[in-house]
Amino acid sequence: MIKVSIIGASGYAGAELTRLLMMHEDVEIINLCSKSYANMKFGELYPGHIAGDYTLSDIDIEKIGNESDVIFTALPHGVSSKTVLKLSKYNKKIIDLSGDYRYDDENVYEKNYNIVHPSPELMKKAVYGLSEVYKDKIAKADIVANPGCYTTCAILSLRPLIKNKLIDESSIIIDAKSGVTGAGRKATQGLHFCETQENFKAYKVAVHRHTSEIEQELSKVSDDDIKLSFTPHLLPVKRGILETIYMALNPNCSEKEIERAFKTAYKDECFIKVLTNGEIPELKSVVGSNSLHIGYVIDKRLHRLIIVSVLDNLIKGAAGQAVQNMNIMYGLTQDKGLNKGGWYL
Amino acid sequence: MIKVSIIGASGYAGAELTRLLMMHEDVEIINLCSKSYANMKFGELYPGHIAGDYTLSDIDIEKIGNESDVIFTALPHGVSSKTVLKLSKYNKKIIDLSGDYRYDDENVYEKNYNIVHPSPELMKKAVYGLSEVYKDKIAKADIVANPGCYTTCAILSLRPLIKNKLIDESSIIIDAKSGVTGAGRKATQGLHFCETQENFKAYKVAVHRHTSEIEQELSKVSDDDIKLSFTPHLLPVKRGILETIYMALNPNCSEKEIERAFKTAYKDECFIKVLTNGEIPELKSVVGSNSLHIGYVIDKRLHRLIIVSVLDNLIKGAAGQAVQNMNIMYGLTQDKGLNKGGWYL
Amino acid sequence: MIKVSIIGASGYAGAELTRLLMMHEDVEIINLCSKSYANMKFGELYPGHIAGDYTLSDIDIEKIGNESDVIFTALPHGVSSKTVLKLSKYNKKIIDLSGDYRYDDENVYEKNYNIVHPSPELMKKAVYGLSEVYKDKIAKADIVANPGCYTTCAILSLRPLIKNKLIDESSIIIDAKSGVTGAGRKATQGLHFCETQENFKAYKVAVHRHTSEIEQELSKVSDDDIKLSFTPHLLPVKRGILETIYMALNPNCSEKEIERAFKTAYKDECFIKVLTNGEIPELKSVVGSNSLHIGYVIDKRLHRLIIVSVLDNLIKGAAGQAVQNMNIMYGLTQDKGLNKGGWYL
Amino acid sequence: MIKVSIIGASGYAGAELTRLLMMHEDVEIINLCSKSYANMKFGELYPGHIAGDYTLSDIDIEKIGNESDVIFTALPHGVSSKTVLKLSKYNKKIIDLSGDYRYDDENVYEKNYNIVHPSPELMKKAVYGLSEVYKDKIAKADIVANPGCYTTCAILSLRPLIKNKLIDESSIIIDAKSGVTGAGRKATQGLHFCETQENFKAYKVAVHRHTSEIEQELSKVSDDDIKLSFTPHLLPVKRGILETIYMALNPNCSEKEIERAFKTAYKDECFIKVLTNGEIPELKSVVGSNSLHIGYVIDKRLHRLIIVSVLDNLIKGAAGQAVQNMNIMYGLTQDKGLNKGGWYL
Repeated sequence: MIKVSIIGASGYAGAELTRLLMMHEDVEIINLCSKSYANMKFGELYPGHIAGDYTLSDIDIEKIGNESDVIFTALPHGVSSKTVLKLSKYNKKIIDLSGDYRYDDENVYEKNYNIVHPSPELMKKAVYGLSEVYKDKIAKADIVANPGCYTTCAILSLRPLIKNKLIDESSIIIDAKSGVTGAGRKATQGLHFCETQENFKAYKVAVHRHTSEIEQELSKVSDDDIKLSFTPHLLPVKRGILETIYMALNPNCSEKEIERAFKTAYKDECFIKVLTNGEIPELKSVVGSNSLHIGYVIDKRLHRLIIVSVLDNLIKGAAGQAVQNMNIMYGLTQDKGLNKGGWYL
Repeated sequence: MIKVSIIGASGYAGAELTRLLMMHEDVEIINLCSKSYANMKFGELYPGHIAGDYTLSDIDIEKIGNESDVIFTALPHGVSSKTVLKLSKYNKKIIDLSGDYRYDDENVYEKNYNIVHPSPELMKKAVYGLSEVYKDKIAKADIVANPGCYTTCAILSLRPLIKNKLIDESSIIIDAKSGVTGAGRKATQGLHFCETQENFKAYKVAVHRHTSEIEQELSKVSDDDIKLSFTPHLLPVKRGILETIYMALNPNCSEKEIERAFKTAYKDECFIKVLTNGEIPELKSVVGSNSLHIGYVIDKRLHRLIIVSVLDNLIKGAAGQAVQNMNIMYGLTQDKGLNKGGWYL
Repeated sequence: MIKVSIIGASGYAGAELTRLLMMHEDVEIINLCSKSYANMKFGELYPGHIAGDYTLSDIDIEKIGNESDVIFTALPHGVSSKTVLKLSKYNKKIIDLSGDYRYDDENVYEKNYNIVHPSPELMKKAVYGLSEVYKDKIAKADIVANPGCYTTCAILSLRPLIKNKLIDESSIIIDAKSGVTGAGRKATQGLHFCETQENFKAYKVAVHRHTSEIEQELSKVSDDDIKLSFTPHLLPVKRGILETIYMALNPNCSEKEIERAFKTAYKDECFIKVLTNGEIPELKSVVGSNSLHIGYVIDKRLHRLIIVSVLDNLIKGAAGQAVQNMNIMYGLTQDKGLNKGGWYL
Repeated sequence: MIKVSIIGASGYAGAELTRLLMMHEDVEIINLCSKSYANMKFGELYPGHIAGDYTLSDIDIEKIGNESDVIFTALPHGVSSKTVLKLSKYNKKIIDLSGDYRYDDENVYEKNYNIVHPSPELMKKAVYGLSEVYKDKIAKADIVANPGCYTTCAILSLRPLIKNKLIDESSIIIDAKSGVTGAGRKATQGLHFCETQENFKAYKVAVHRHTSEIEQELSKVSDDDIKLSFTPHLLPVKRGILETIYMALNPNCSEKEIERAFKTAYKDECFIKVLTNGEIPELKSVVGSNSLHIGYVIDKRLHRLIIVSVLDNLIKGAAGQAVQNMNIMYGLTQDKGLNKGGWYL
């Protein structure tokens, strides 16, 4: 049994991670931590949750560091980096769900998060946890920087096309729509039911942090620095991300090449489903699962490509991918404890 | 033009009241007050609101008292009673939307609200603002205590039956379901979109304050003190209350008597629609309007009566009834500035 | 491996049953049948569903009868009884999710369903599949009549109280609220998103079929014929049932007796959670699970008891209980393949 | 009083039009027609609707043609063109809400609607009813072709920029999201509550008809034929359209020029609100009103412009604009009977 601790279990990503790990046959949860709710039963926050009888404990770094095989940190950025730094002395596997270890260059991080990183050297050691792309590195990593939800959807949708030089890299526009769990558990005015139900809005237009994370990863498969537009929107649903991605096709790019690029990239991947040209996925196809569905339409009239991709922001976009990464680190099958099919209803 | 001031305009009932009064042809809004948001544009809180360009001002009792013909107070209980007490010196019409002036007996108020009332003598002067029932008194009142949302629906549904001695008064059970605006604008964990969407719950079972308000009003048309069960639930919708009300019929009560009781009570009332036996109203029939629809089913098998009543909690259950009361006080037609038909979509 | 066939897999209960059985380690699905969608991929109806690659086949009674160990029928009433009659010749285990085999007395069935039953003798052989109550009979049954969704919630909530003679049986009122999946997959005007969203309504007041099923089962633990009020409502959520149940307590009934009655009945039951006096469950506590949560409040003022119970109508109210019954029939642990904790988010 | 008839009153656009015209002080509704629901009370379809007591009548062209001053047709395309053709003989004002009279070139219509137009000459006479743009022509028109919902939002957002040559016209991408009323009243599987709630999807990617209508109108203010990408999505809300529109700015285009272009175009328009650079509107800002809010962000990093525009698809996108056009035709103030502020809650 893999002994795991979850720090920050009371947030939405933490609660979902707890749910998934409770049902994972090779895992034993030994510490469920929350600074704000220490000594409270998990079931008081999440009544009916499978981990409801567990008692949340305060964050005891020494205890966690000594007892755990894997430590998941689901903390706000800035808090996470400091916690991971302390934990790193115990030589255990760490999977961090924050943005704090996702960058190659601390300056990009610091510019986007407006914060000084406490351990740039550790950031360099961390492996970017996009499971399908960095499987080999993840398998040997000590610290995995689990990607953002918007990011996972965008990178996996665009990477094969850029790698195969099929599109005009300067033309990319990502119009992203996310469910409300993506905004976190904190009760703010904007997340009040009456302000969200029957509403829809864009936010952080042209200035969202995830832009830099997407650009970093896509630039790695290009000769140039990729720069793109990214616009997040808040959907009146609890879970799920749908991204509509626009780009110009390169002059001679054919339908077959697009199909081949996706197939080559993902043919052995159990969680990635690439639909046939013209088929469009819906949010409900993936909610409840760790799957990413990629649909695309070739607009011959304008010689553009439109991709529509969907994933569950709490699972493939956060907790599920974290479990997938743990599976990779322990040589388990990638889908151990994870659903490929959604709930649908 | 009637010069009105609204104190507590930033809450949901206050904002709806502001919307209705902005569209009322005989009204001029002269003060739109909010302690918390003083000096802010109303449109910063409610973008696109018809009163968006107004600037919220702090509560200047003297200014409001001197300038206004009618003052609406939409404040938390306890705060409202103190404000109304200060305003009462200016001899203007006051319509209070809180629970502070709704009781005949200050002891019942103090027991239910757990607070000492600052002016029981003013409470005695106030008229209970259930428009259809107390029209004559409201017309001459200085202070109108606007009823609660659950309360309006329950009293108007039951009063004709009790008055005509058609039902077993000891058997009444009110199962009430309210939209989320009824819980107010404050962002609490329980009102977070992700905790409300696809959820449903009962709360304050057998101990909700409105029980005492309903019992007070129904006891007035009975020889006995009416005691009843009242269970509120939180519906995942923004607006609307539906109450399913159960009672035993008196031994010889006939369908005709029930029909006649309702007809006699409401035949001249423009906002009350009593459906025919067996016809059941839906929430969407009244949302957006000041109407109350009352449906009923006689269960001959069990000799019980089941009433299903619906209203818009922000309109007939709060702001709309307040406007209706102002219309009555000024001798205008009751429906001036108020919709009888809902939005439906 | 238990070889199972599902007839009527395309409906909502059938699709959920398919999902649960796909994840059940001891089960192999050999026939997934739908008359209307024969030869279509399951994934065309339910994109992203875990059984998406299966092809729906027409209903070939002989093939199904010969090949299957267990046959699940999720068909409309009237259709189901005829299908089960044909299948009964193959001496396989049948679990029927319709109302066709739930009654002891065919006259009660025929009166409530307005249909002549094709095989009253088979109806008599069938065991009512309320898992917690009839476990022993279910273990040996050939035909299990899986209970209705409203019914499961009501009977399990009331049975211990009636059995222990703690309440006035003539006073029972069940105010039930169900999610829209309970109304089935067929696209009717009343289930159009725009007619359901931000709406709420009661339906079939005092005349819903499930009343007779609840009365039958509760009368078995009483000396009298139980007659009760049952009012269903349509909630604007996809899944879940919440029932608020009112009753008068017997004169000397104590809190302790109520607690003991529930504890005695359910202390060994993994899916039934009885909360402490005053604690009230929410829909989200059980959605996604096979659990039933029962909360209760003793209203000393009126000497009444109010129960609030919740379950997932597609799981404990249909597909999950069907799987639970299969587990019982095969000597597996009751919770094999079933969640006790909900999704929460 | 203007005597109006509404043909196709039973659909969602027709019902909203009926609601608005019922509240219009200068209008008398004389015929409320529906082929499918003739002789039914309007209130049976829309209980609680302000026009609930009206009886729907079959379409009697002669009666309608003789009695009406203005005839509104809210019919499916193809049906509408034939009906308008018959009505045109009566020399009354006609406002058609379908797509049948919106095109300058019948070939474009026929290609996009896959139908032969019965009266291309009448199509040529019809005036495109985009109120703010064609006010003068509308004032004198006999037939007004009321624009589509997606279309109104897109054209009014882009026209000033193209007219002033501020953007690269070949770079336009419109990512549009619409509420479910936009899909009409007909109950189809995809509009079932359980398939729409907590779901989100794109549809008709790169092939939606409204593309051609947008391109036609924008090309009129350009030297070239404008071609653009348009992707509609279905939001799980009842009302409202939000469009996120991307384009490259021309090399030397300044923030000031953009501001000036919008100001010049709309400074006297009561329903168009252009926000300041960086301010983003939400759906709830306009739902319930005839307003269009246009927000924009200049992305200096990529020298792109992102526009976010919102309107209520049933009002400014259909029924409200139809009333606005009638007001223009009769020399009334444009906003007679129309709200500028939304419901917000």
